[in-house]
Amino acid sequence: MADDTYHPGLEGVTATETAISYLDVEHETILIRGYDLLKLATSVDYLSVAHLLLEERLPSADEHAAFRRNLAEQQAVPPQIWTILRQLGPHTHLMDALRTAISALATFDPTVSGVPADHLDGQLRTLLASMPVIVANMYHIRENRPLATPDPALSYAANFLAMITGHRPNPLQERAFDQLLTVYSEHELPNSTFAAIVIASTLSDTYGALTGAVASLKGPLHGGANEAVMRMLREMQTAEQAEPYLLAKLAQKERIMGFGHRVYMKQADPRAVLMKNLLAQLVSSPQEHELYQICLTGEAVMLREKGLYPNLDYYAAPVYDLLGVPIDLYTPIFFAARTAGLLAHIREQYRHNRLFRPRVRYIGPALGDVAS
Amino acid sequence: MADDTYHPGLEGVTATETAISYLDVEHETILIRGYDLLKLATSVDYLSVAHLLLEERLPSADEHAAFRRNLAEQQAVPPQIWTILRQLGPHTHLMDALRTAISALATFDPTVSGVPADHLDGQLRTLLASMPVIVANMYHIRENRPLATPDPALSYAANFLAMITGHRPNPLQERAFDQLLTVYSEHELPNSTFAAIVIASTLSDTYGALTGAVASLKGPLHGGANEAVMRMLREMQTAEQAEPYLLAKLAQKERIMGFGHRVYMKQADPRAVLMKNLLAQLVSSPQEHELYQICLTGEAVMLREKGLYPNLDYYAAPVYDLLGVPIDLYTPIFFAARTAGLLAHIREQYRHNRLFRPRVRYIGPALGDVAS
Repeated sequence: MADDTYHPGLEGVTATETAISYLDVEHETILIRGYDLLKLATSVDYLSVAHLLLEERLPSADEHAAFRRNLAEQQAVPPQIWTILRQLGPHTHLMDALRTAISALATFDPTVSGVPADHLDGQLRTLLASMPVIVANMYHIRENRPLATPDPALSYAANFLAMITGHRPNPLQERAFDQLLTVYSEHELPNSTFAAIVIASTLSDTYGALTGAVASLKGPLHGGANEAVMRMLREMQTAEQAEPYLLAKLAQKERIMGFGHRVYMKQADPRAVLMKNLLAQLVSSPQEHELYQICLTGEAVMLREKGLYPNLDYYAAPVYDLLGVPIDLYTPIFFAARTAGLLAHIREQYRHNRLFRPRVRYIGPALGDVAS
Repeated sequence: MADDTYHPGLEGVTATETAISYLDVEHETILIRGYDLLKLATSVDYLSVAHLLLEERLPSADEHAAFRRNLAEQQAVPPQIWTILRQLGPHTHLMDALRTAISALATFDPTVSGVPADHLDGQLRTLLASMPVIVANMYHIRENRPLATPDPALSYAANFLAMITGHRPNPLQERAFDQLLTVYSEHELPNSTFAAIVIASTLSDTYGALTGAVASLKGPLHGGANEAVMRMLREMQTAEQAEPYLLAKLAQKERIMGFGHRVYMKQADPRAVLMKNLLAQLVSSPQEHELYQICLTGEAVMLREKGLYPNLDYYAAPVYDLLGVPIDLYTPIFFAARTAGLLAHIREQYRHNRLFRPRVRYIGPALGDVAS
C-alpha cells in the first residue's frame, strides 16, 4: 500500500461530511449549524442548542416550551436500571456505570432493534431526557444515598444541577451550569463522536453508538482530562506554589493536563475564555479567590514556558468545583451535555450511511517467515 | 479543506500500522503474524491461535497446556453479572446483553482505571476466559433456564459448545466449532476492531474498547449478517425454491445477506470455502442435506446473477445451525471468537498510541446565513 495513504491518528483526513458543526480554526469560531457556539452560550439556553442540534433550527418560544415539556415527561428511568447500578463492583468508575446504564437501557426500548431511522426521534428524546437523571443517581447510588427526583418546574440546567447537589441553584449558578452544558454540547468530530458514527455505520443501534462514545470519553486523553485538571489544581494548593509546581513537572517532562488541543494547535480554545469569565463571576470566598489565582498563574506559566493556551477542560474544572459538583461527575456531565451533539451525528450517519472500513499497513512477518 | 482529503467510509485510507494481521487480497490470504489463517484453522486449535495473537507466537505443547489451565482458572464470573443480566428489559437483543455484561465486568477489576499497559495481560486473560461463560449463560438467563457450568476437562471449543447446547459435542462437532472460532478470531481492521482501537486511543480501558466493538458487531452490516443469512436460508425452505426466492429479491433490489465483502471485492472469501467443506461433513439427516443444497443453489444463483461470491457469514450460519446453536447466539459467538484478535489490537494501540481525531467537511450553513 502506498505510503501516502497512511495517516497516523487520521490527522488531516476528512472522515465525513456534516451539516452539524465545524471548528473554524482560522476564524477561531466553533460553528453550530451556522451559529457561533460562544454566542449561543450567552444568548440562548442549553435546551435551545439541543433543539438546534437535533431539529436543525433554534426553537420558537412555543417550540421551546413543548420541547421542555416533552423531555420532562420522558425522564422516568426503568427501576431495573437502579438495581443494575447497585450490583456494580467495588472498582466502579462513574463513566463505567454510565456506560453500563445506557447499554442496559436499550433492552427496555421496543424500537431498539428495528431500522434505526424509523424510531430515532423517540430514542433521541428518551436518551436526552434521561441523561441527567441517570448521571445524578448513579452517583448517589455509588455513595449509598437515596435517589434524587427530577423537578419539572426547573429548567433543564437547574434541575440537573439540583439533582446532583441536592439544592436549588441561584440564578448565577444556574446560568453558569447552563453555559457549561452548552459549550460541551457539540464540537465537530472529537474521538468520542467519531467512535459513535463508526459504530452507527454498521446500522447498529443508537444506544450502542452512545455506549462507545462513553467508553471513548472516559479516556484520560479525552473527557477524563477535566478531572485530572482539578486534581492538579488542588495539588498546587496556593497561587504561590503554582509556578514551582508546574516548573518541576515540566522539568520532569510530565504531561500537564488542560493545555493545547489537536485542532486548535497554538490558538486559544474560545470555550475556555467563556469559562474563565464565568469563574471570575462565581468566586466569592477567599479560598475560591485563591483557586482563581492558581488558574491564572498556571495559564501564564504555560504560555510563557510552552506557548500553550488553556483548553476548555482547564477552566471548566474550577467552574464545576465552584458549583459544588464532585470531581467524579465532571466527565459524566460532559457526556450528558454532549449527548445532544452525539445524537445529531448518529442520526446524520444513519441518513447518509457508509460503513467505515479503513485498511492497515502490515508490519508483521511475511508468509513463510515464521511458518515451519 | 481540499477535496482529496475526504474518503467516504475511510475507503482506501490506511488508519494504522499493525503486526497482527493483513488481508492480502492479491494472494487471497488472511495473514496472521506470518501464518495463513486457513492453514492455522486446519492444523492447530483456537487456543493456539489466541496465543499467537496475544503472545506473538504459537505455543509449545507446555505453553499450550499452561495457557489452557490459566484460562480455565479464570472462568469465574462475579455472580452480580448474572443478577444484572436478569434485570434486563423485555426487548433484550443478546448483543445488548453481552455489551452490558462486559461493561459491568469492568467494575470488578481493581486494575481497570490504572495505566492500561501495566495490567493488560491479566485483563486480556480474564476477558478471554470469561467470554464463553458469559455468552452461554446470558442466553440461558434470557430463556429462564439454569446457568451452565464450565467443564475444565474439555477443550476451549468443546466446553464453549457444551455450555450452549447442554451436551458434549462429538469429535467432528468439536473440530467444526473450533475451526469456526478460529476463522472468526481475527480479520485485520473491520469496523468493530477499528471502533475498539479508536476508543483505546484515548487511553480508555480495555473493557470500554471491547464494549464499543460489541456495539459495532451487532450492526446488520457487520456481525449481524450471519443471523440474517440463517433466517433467509430458512425462508427458502427447499433447494427448489431457493432460485425463485433469490430472483424475486433481486428483482425488488433487496439486499441479499452473505455475499460480497468491501475488501475481498469480487474474489471469494477463503474462510467461506473452509466453512462450506465443514458443512458438507456435518450434514447427515435429509433435512440437513436439503439445507446444504439450498446453500449451493444460492451460491450459484448469486454468482451467475451478480458475480458475487459468498462471504464467511453465508456458510458459517448453516454450520452454526447444524451444531445446534440458536440463531440469536451467532453474533455473540462471533464476538467471543474475535475477542482474541480485538485484545491483540487494543494492546498494540496502547503500545504505539496516537489519538484518532479526523476532521469533517462542513456542508451546513455558514456563519451569518441563519443568525439574526
